[in-house]
Amino acid sequence: MGLDPGRTVAELRELHELTGDERGAQRVCWTKTWARAREWFRSKLDELPVEVQTDEAGNLWATLPGRADETLVLGGHLDSVPNGGWLDGALDALAALEVVRRLAQEPPPPLAVRLVDWADEEGARFGRSLFGSSAAAGTLEPDAVRHLVDSDGVSLPEALAGHGVDLDRATTARGQLAGVAGYLELHIEQGPVLESLGLPLGAVVGCFGLERHVVTFRGQSAHAGSTPFGARRDAFAAAARLALETREIARRHDGLATTGSLRLEPGIPTAVAGLCELVVDFRRLDADALRAMVAETRAASERIAGTERVEAAWTQLFASAPVDFDADLVALAEESIRETAGRSHRVASGPLHDATEMARAGIPTAMIFVQSLGGLSHTREEDTRVEHLELAVVAFDRLVEKTLRRLSSGPGP
Amino acid sequence: MGLDPGRTVAELRELHELTGDERGAQRVCWTKTWARAREWFRSKLDELPVEVQTDEAGNLWATLPGRADETLVLGGHLDSVPNGGWLDGALDALAALEVVRRLAQEPPPPLAVRLVDWADEEGARFGRSLFGSSAAAGTLEPDAVRHLVDSDGVSLPEALAGHGVDLDRATTARGQLAGVAGYLELHIEQGPVLESLGLPLGAVVGCFGLERHVVTFRGQSAHAGSTPFGARRDAFAAAARLALETREIARRHDGLATTGSLRLEPGIPTAVAGLCELVVDFRRLDADALRAMVAETRAASERIAGTERVEAAWTQLFASAPVDFDADLVALAEESIRETAGRSHRVASGPLHDATEMARAGIPTAMIFVQSLGGLSHTREEDTRVEHLELAVVAFDRLVEKTLRRLSSGPGP
Repeated sequence: MGLDPGRTVAELRELHELTGDERGAQRVCWTKTWARAREWFRSKLDELPVEVQTDEAGNLWATLPGRADETLVLGGHLDSVPNGGWLDGALDALAALEVVRRLAQEPPPPLAVRLVDWADEEGARFGRSLFGSSAAAGTLEPDAVRHLVDSDGVSLPEALAGHGVDLDRATTARGQLAGVAGYLELHIEQGPVLESLGLPLGAVVGCFGLERHVVTFRGQSAHAGSTPFGARRDAFAAAARLALETREIARRHDGLATTGSLRLEPGIPTAVAGLCELVVDFRRLDADALRAMVAETRAASERIAGTERVEAAWTQLFASAPVDFDADLVALAEESIRETAGRSHRVASGPLHDATEMARAGIPTAMIFVQSLGGLSHTREEDTRVEHLELAVVAFDRLVEKTLRRLSSGPGP
Repeated sequence: MGLDPGRTVAELRELHELTGDERGAQRVCWTKTWARAREWFRSKLDELPVEVQTDEAGNLWATLPGRADETLVLGGHLDSVPNGGWLDGALDALAALEVVRRLAQEPPPPLAVRLVDWADEEGARFGRSLFGSSAAAGTLEPDAVRHLVDSDGVSLPEALAGHGVDLDRATTARGQLAGVAGYLELHIEQGPVLESLGLPLGAVVGCFGLERHVVTFRGQSAHAGSTPFGARRDAFAAAARLALETREIARRHDGLATTGSLRLEPGIPTAVAGLCELVVDFRRLDADALRAMVAETRAASERIAGTERVEAAWTQLFASAPVDFDADLVALAEESIRETAGRSHRVASGPLHDATEMARAGIPTAMIFVQSLGGLSHTREEDTRVEHLELAVVAFDRLVEKTLRRLSSGPGP
């Protein structure tokens, strides 16, 4: 009885066994494997006295009634990137499940507690992260994502329809946030800071701003064996130069920039690339500084396009302004961490989380990070020590208790 | 009656209509569209007094009997790169068809004349060019290509089997070259030299040497939002540096090097690439100089791998030593061109051709090039003036006549 952090670890392994392979986790949203993960998770929820429903954006909710109608939401996401890790998102959802299990064995909590498994946090298939939480937060614009297609040419609306979600009705999920007084999430850090400090846990103060752009260079496809350099308009050469220069710009600005996705046309060894499409992901804590970093990169792309005799075009894929989490709840997170692991540390998150959308929607929000070994994530090597996972579940449970007390005693939101 | 070069142009358009789309020619070897092109071509052959057969490597042969058993082979290839041009390979095959049509209306030629449509000249799907002609020439090693897979994970042996070709029996096609006294091919230049000289036609003296390597950089996939630059082992950054440095090395050596194909893992916007596989295609006329250029690039990849903290591995995908064409037949090609278009020019071919394999097999070989507009090839923009196409068919027909006379009067090969 009571909280069993070892069960969370066992369930994480069970889920990975069910939905991963030798290359890693394969729970890409809007796929059969993801649906299988959901089904498995639902079977766990069915053992609890909770009401389960799926909203218009494909988010799965489980509600444990409380003494008041207001709710505290505990979030996570079962979806993963392709060849991803076993913890990213799944830890949040399964820790929340364990906390709800513990609460269900006790008298009703002061507020209703709702667990949510957000749909498509990763955006791995269509490039648009935080689909479900942004639909609930009201920041998703259906027209801005309607055109997205995956690498097999399947459109986002088609993929959604295959899982019973109508893009044009997705933002109706906003109704789920009525009466929500707070939002909590546990997540792996996915970076090297906590490990470098020798700390298992950290309290997250907010999230970096992010801009993600598709840069398309158009040159001229030509035969690799017969086209002298002087006659080439090589779209890949321009992309290679931009990727390297973007890295220097981001370094100078103390921000982050990443080229992780790139497509060449015709994409064969015997042809100079006539087209290169790369996605550049920019992150920085300060909004103005983020804009400056992107503007400098855009100028670099124009200059490079000029010397390589190609054309550069930019399309914004996604943007997320920096957000601060709730000062009171962050303080509670620190308190919970200190009581569990002795020491805490405040970190800003470079990765976005569904919590970002909740904070943006004005909901008091906090997160706890647990150390990632080697700082690795979005890869099968992603790992965290078992003892740290268990500490994380305990600290998260403490944070839920403290937050329920605070929200039921303090002034309403 | 007689030679009708306009018919060749009309048939090229007919073939393109049948097997191209708005992105270009789609006759990638071992696909349904390629098979449809073959079927169409066979229907043209069926109208002629030729014997048609497909050999063990998937090459299609049509034989017009002559007064002697020795043969002159006229070659081409109907396969194209994806989104390719309407002339590359198809002009050769259709010009050869027109010459055979003309010959079939006359008394038997002194030698048998065989038309061959080589299988998989382009190697677009599996990265191995000149499949059919190298099988016939005896330079194909089944074990060296058995492992090749296309981007959908289909293996070369599977793709071959789908078209009735058994990889382990493919080299039996060598039997086709018994008694072959000469090989001729007409091709578009695919480069800018003839256009820059204002000449429609050129005589090809030989082919550049070529090495094609897969360079694999292995770093560590990591989250784009949380991994500081100091902690990254970015395989794509290494690849971008290598691609640019390779270009400088090739420029210094007056050779060619091209990165036209590249694959990232995991290949998503939110992850630093843990793996990058790029194919580098090197070409140079001199064999020693080609080796030096590749060695310098290999050293650069090691140096870059060191500073980017990734690992570099090289796998040779394909190599072709430089070859010279037959001096006598090249002289006949020049004579034919001068008689047709007034002036000729001698060029070396950067692109490989099936003719390269025939010359390597010791068969006296020559080629005629026709000007390419803008030097473009391997793209839907590939084009040649209609009057130049017609001149090319006339010059090629003259070359066939001259070669038949020479081979039937001179000493045997």
